[in-house]
Amino acid sequence: MVTAFAPGSIGNVCVGFDMLGLALAGVGDRVTAKRTGTAGISIAEVRGLDGEVHPSLSTEPDQNTASIAARALWQAHGDSTGIELLLRKGVPLQSGMGGSAASAVAAVVAVNALLPESLPHEQLLPFALEGEKYASGGLHADNVAPSLMGGLVLCPAVLLPRMMQIKTPTGVSSVLLHPEMQLDTAKARRSLAKGYTLEQWLSQQAYLAGFITGCAADDHALIRQSFHDVIIEPQRSAAVACFDAVKEAAMKADALGASLSGSGPSIFALCMDSNAPHVASAMEQACRSSGIECQSWVSPMTAPGAHVEDSQ
Amino acid sequence: MVTAFAPGSIGNVCVGFDMLGLALAGVGDRVTAKRTGTAGISIAEVRGLDGEVHPSLSTEPDQNTASIAARALWQAHGDSTGIELLLRKGVPLQSGMGGSAASAVAAVVAVNALLPESLPHEQLLPFALEGEKYASGGLHADNVAPSLMGGLVLCPAVLLPRMMQIKTPTGVSSVLLHPEMQLDTAKARRSLAKGYTLEQWLSQQAYLAGFITGCAADDHALIRQSFHDVIIEPQRSAAVACFDAVKEAAMKADALGASLSGSGPSIFALCMDSNAPHVASAMEQACRSSGIECQSWVSPMTAPGAHVEDSQ
Repeated sequence: MVTAFAPGSIGNVCVGFDMLGLALAGVGDRVTAKRTGTAGISIAEVRGLDGEVHPSLSTEPDQNTASIAARALWQAHGDSTGIELLLRKGVPLQSGMGGSAASAVAAVVAVNALLPESLPHEQLLPFALEGEKYASGGLHADNVAPSLMGGLVLCPAVLLPRMMQIKTPTGVSSVLLHPEMQLDTAKARRSLAKGYTLEQWLSQQAYLAGFITGCAADDHALIRQSFHDVIIEPQRSAAVACFDAVKEAAMKADALGASLSGSGPSIFALCMDSNAPHVASAMEQACRSSGIECQSWVSPMTAPGAHVEDSQ
Repeated sequence: MVTAFAPGSIGNVCVGFDMLGLALAGVGDRVTAKRTGTAGISIAEVRGLDGEVHPSLSTEPDQNTASIAARALWQAHGDSTGIELLLRKGVPLQSGMGGSAASAVAAVVAVNALLPESLPHEQLLPFALEGEKYASGGLHADNVAPSLMGGLVLCPAVLLPRMMQIKTPTGVSSVLLHPEMQLDTAKARRSLAKGYTLEQWLSQQAYLAGFITGCAADDHALIRQSFHDVIIEPQRSAAVACFDAVKEAAMKADALGASLSGSGPSIFALCMDSNAPHVASAMEQACRSSGIECQSWVSPMTAPGAHVEDSQ
């Protein structure tokens, strides 16, 4: 019996739509996997953090990213016995915090420990992606990759299965604010514009390249100058009523930048470690002033990836 | 009297349209600047490498990137005397090798040495860009920045006047092949498509990010996997009859990648230092087999930028 933890994550990270992700600390999903005599993958139960049976998630193995990912791995490398999963959701549903990816990653990390021959950690990516594909309808690794590997990860579709750990700047944290509302990621994706100008593309590409270069060089001014999403954020932010107020509050509190986490509704900021409590409280206050209850998490940009917590 | 040399350069470098440039070695323009009693900037002569008066370049100060750039610098930081320029062109005209940028950069570096108070080298960028603006009709630093700074430089319009030196991978050279034909850069730019899909943008952005990450990590496999231009090259390569044959020859000779230099007609490849003579000869042979005479240059990716050669 093995229990694995996989963190939630910030998809896109403002500058890298579909290809950049950042792991969170202290919020994630747990999967316990144990062998059964019956072949195949089953889900024994799905519970929330409070220990109660989860009100909305199904235990149907075809409808859960954890079991879909676990099955892909077990079919490729398992044996003739079966696996039963117990899923404990720590990431709020449809929060834009990479919850479906965290479930898939926790499941493959737990099941990997039960394989006749375990795979190297980074080789679990394609199996976890099978689960994510079910959830988002496409091949986007920007939540799965940071949840698996930790830290800041570049993982564009055209370079998969490669993923590149990006050096994070010293002394920078993320602040993630989750407003208590839900958004449908797949729907958010379908509503994106189809066509873009050369100028839009060049600006956004420049910001991604500037951000990566700024991170590697510990150049906070360059990170700040590059932290803009001129393409996706303007299309999505209107769906999150408190977005403008929360972003403005973060910037006024001297954050390096702020944007939507994934397709929202969560909003995140990057800021110096020492300033994180101040930024978090400014963002929370702005959100509540918009009439929306919220919760926030502070994570170092070096937050660790998924790992086995308990094995017996 | 000061003489400065500024190298030619590879604009775009395949993955970074308008925002990435790589300095060449051993090919560039020279500008000699001397004070005169007459206020303003004049051009005494423009000669080719053979020492003869250049057959097509004008000595009209409003029509030469060297004098336009020198004038911008002198007007901002000079005195009431004047400057006379002697320009020696080493970069072939309309070759896609950054010749107009090299003239502008050599001019500002020479004139800078005559200023009452010389500026730090990197602060010359905006003045050199004034010349380039005249030549290309836009604010593109991808030739001026590498010519000024040397090596591989990231310099997107939205981040100017910042430019970021990108760590180059160890042991990698560029091979630049100049087919004896000319292309009009400004015309090539006007003929680009106006609209692009989300998928095109994401692929190209991924390749730029992958290339920069691969360079920093000395990861040749990642450089190879990322070295694609899915947007601009397909629109421009048809204007260069030998392009497909030369690129194919470079790749068969085990180059890491190959593409147009700037808007062409020059074609470049990146390859391991030890393999550069082989790649250069394969590219030359393919070009001549297409019935086009050519010349090639091999440069380390760390080629130096502009500098004062002689001062008296």
